[in-house]
Amino acid sequence: MSQTFSREFRVTLHDTDAAGVLFSSHLLRHAHDAWEELMAEIGFPLHQLIHSAALHLPLVHLEADYHLPMRHGDLLRMLLRVKRIGNQSLTIEVDFFHQDGTLAAHAETVHVALNPSSGSPCPLPAPLRQALSHYRITL
Amino acid sequence: MSQTFSREFRVTLHDTDAAGVLFSSHLLRHAHDAWEELMAEIGFPLHQLIHSAALHLPLVHLEADYHLPMRHGDLLRMLLRVKRIGNQSLTIEVDFFHQDGTLAAHAETVHVALNPSSGSPCPLPAPLRQALSHYRITL
Amino acid sequence: MSQTFSREFRVTLHDTDAAGVLFSSHLLRHAHDAWEELMAEIGFPLHQLIHSAALHLPLVHLEADYHLPMRHGDLLRMLLRVKRIGNQSLTIEVDFFHQDGTLAAHAETVHVALNPSSGSPCPLPAPLRQALSHYRITL
Amino acid sequence: MSQTFSREFRVTLHDTDAAGVLFSSHLLRHAHDAWEELMAEIGFPLHQLIHSAALHLPLVHLEADYHLPMRHGDLLRMLLRVKRIGNQSLTIEVDFFHQDGTLAAHAETVHVALNPSSGSPCPLPAPLRQALSHYRITL
Repeated sequence: MSQTFSREFRVTLHDTDAAGVLFSSHLLRHAHDAWEELMAEIGFPLHQLIHSAALHLPLVHLEADYHLPMRHGDLLRMLLRVKRIGNQSLTIEVDFFHQDGTLAAHAETVHVALNPSSGSPCPLPAPLRQALSHYRITL
Repeated sequence: MSQTFSREFRVTLHDTDAAGVLFSSHLLRHAHDAWEELMAEIGFPLHQLIHSAALHLPLVHLEADYHLPMRHGDLLRMLLRVKRIGNQSLTIEVDFFHQDGTLAAHAETVHVALNPSSGSPCPLPAPLRQALSHYRITL
Repeated sequence: MSQTFSREFRVTLHDTDAAGVLFSSHLLRHAHDAWEELMAEIGFPLHQLIHSAALHLPLVHLEADYHLPMRHGDLLRMLLRVKRIGNQSLTIEVDFFHQDGTLAAHAETVHVALNPSSGSPCPLPAPLRQALSHYRITL
Repeated sequence: MSQTFSREFRVTLHDTDAAGVLFSSHLLRHAHDAWEELMAEIGFPLHQLIHSAALHLPLVHLEADYHLPMRHGDLLRMLLRVKRIGNQSLTIEVDFFHQDGTLAAHAETVHVALNPSSGSPCPLPAPLRQALSHYRITL
């Protein structure tokens, strides 16, 4: 059964630019923050992985589509799901919804598993695969 | 009677730098975000003030002291208070506490009231002064 | 004949995170800054377009691939080209090279032309199409 | 004799917010970037100090005054000087000038010398003191 992971944020002054809307790259900060919260919730906080040199999960690809303006003061809901769990990589997707339920934006990030010592790709640990699988999209 | 306004945030990967700790200017983004939340809570959301051209409150001074490192994954509690309500300006202060209660940092920002049409300083509206006064420091 | 537009930047402490490398979304800030410089160079500075409400070119899609780590102190060269000039949109691509010539990252952004008054898509003005065409990729 | 260190930057869309001006904390990113460039120029690039664990110079205090709005497209000149060289700390100041020579903002940062192994304050190395002294303010 598929679970979603949901977080809200309000667009702050810092998020916006002189054109009056959220500046594109800030959306990806919010998406990354949500991913960090998911990883903490399932027992693999990124700061522990990095600090203990247990596993690195660098972002190797990202993409985003901006459908509607996000303005200062808007409340956005992020729905985060695991799109793909590969042998050595995973894909996270985040939908950003306005309060009226319209889709404001969509982002995807691909993370590859690296052995911090060797710097080489390595398999995703089984417990992490298992934990992530609860958030996998099932069609 | 004095009230405090409190918010928490966790130091995310984005907040940190290659020296392993929170990068200084990001603390001021968090302080500003907390101030925005206070303004919304007391009925003067910044985005409405800016959008309606009712009142601008640009930041004219800031200062911050960094007492302890803030690392990736640390949970910080912000305590926000109104330090001073002048005729045409106000001073906000934020203390940042680690979970063990130690003071990690302190920030202050001074905001001046501007008439958006003229761009000139103007008195702080009485209802705003009144609302802010509940968060004033009383010694 | 195709021209490229080239800019350099050094990865600063602010660009990096606790994992010791450039944080993903900052790359897109650099790509956007380079695009702003191109637009200024060809006579269409973004701040004038926005301020005069002549034309908006909001970003509607972005994607990026991260091939190699970019570390604090690294000097990166950005090569910017116009990948596509559509009727109402344009695609910019930026390659990021390390000093030894290896490709560190690649980013693409799609911008749509909007009439600021109506908020509706509109054709790219002919002089802008003409100016951008010099930077178009020719295979 | 006193030298100044000067750098220019143009206010980009990313630097601004929905109120149409540079967002306060971004000014401190620019000030820090200028300081990094000075340190590299005098032979003490920050990334080498951090990477080699030779010396840490964390920022322990910052303050800034905002005198004039800085808008999208504005060209700012930063003049950086060393205000104070203490035994275990140093103070950098940066003036930000508009093209017409008016002072837009002023920032100061205090950095303390830490031994990376012990985490304790340590004297500023003599060669660094010597190099910085050329940029000291002499009244």
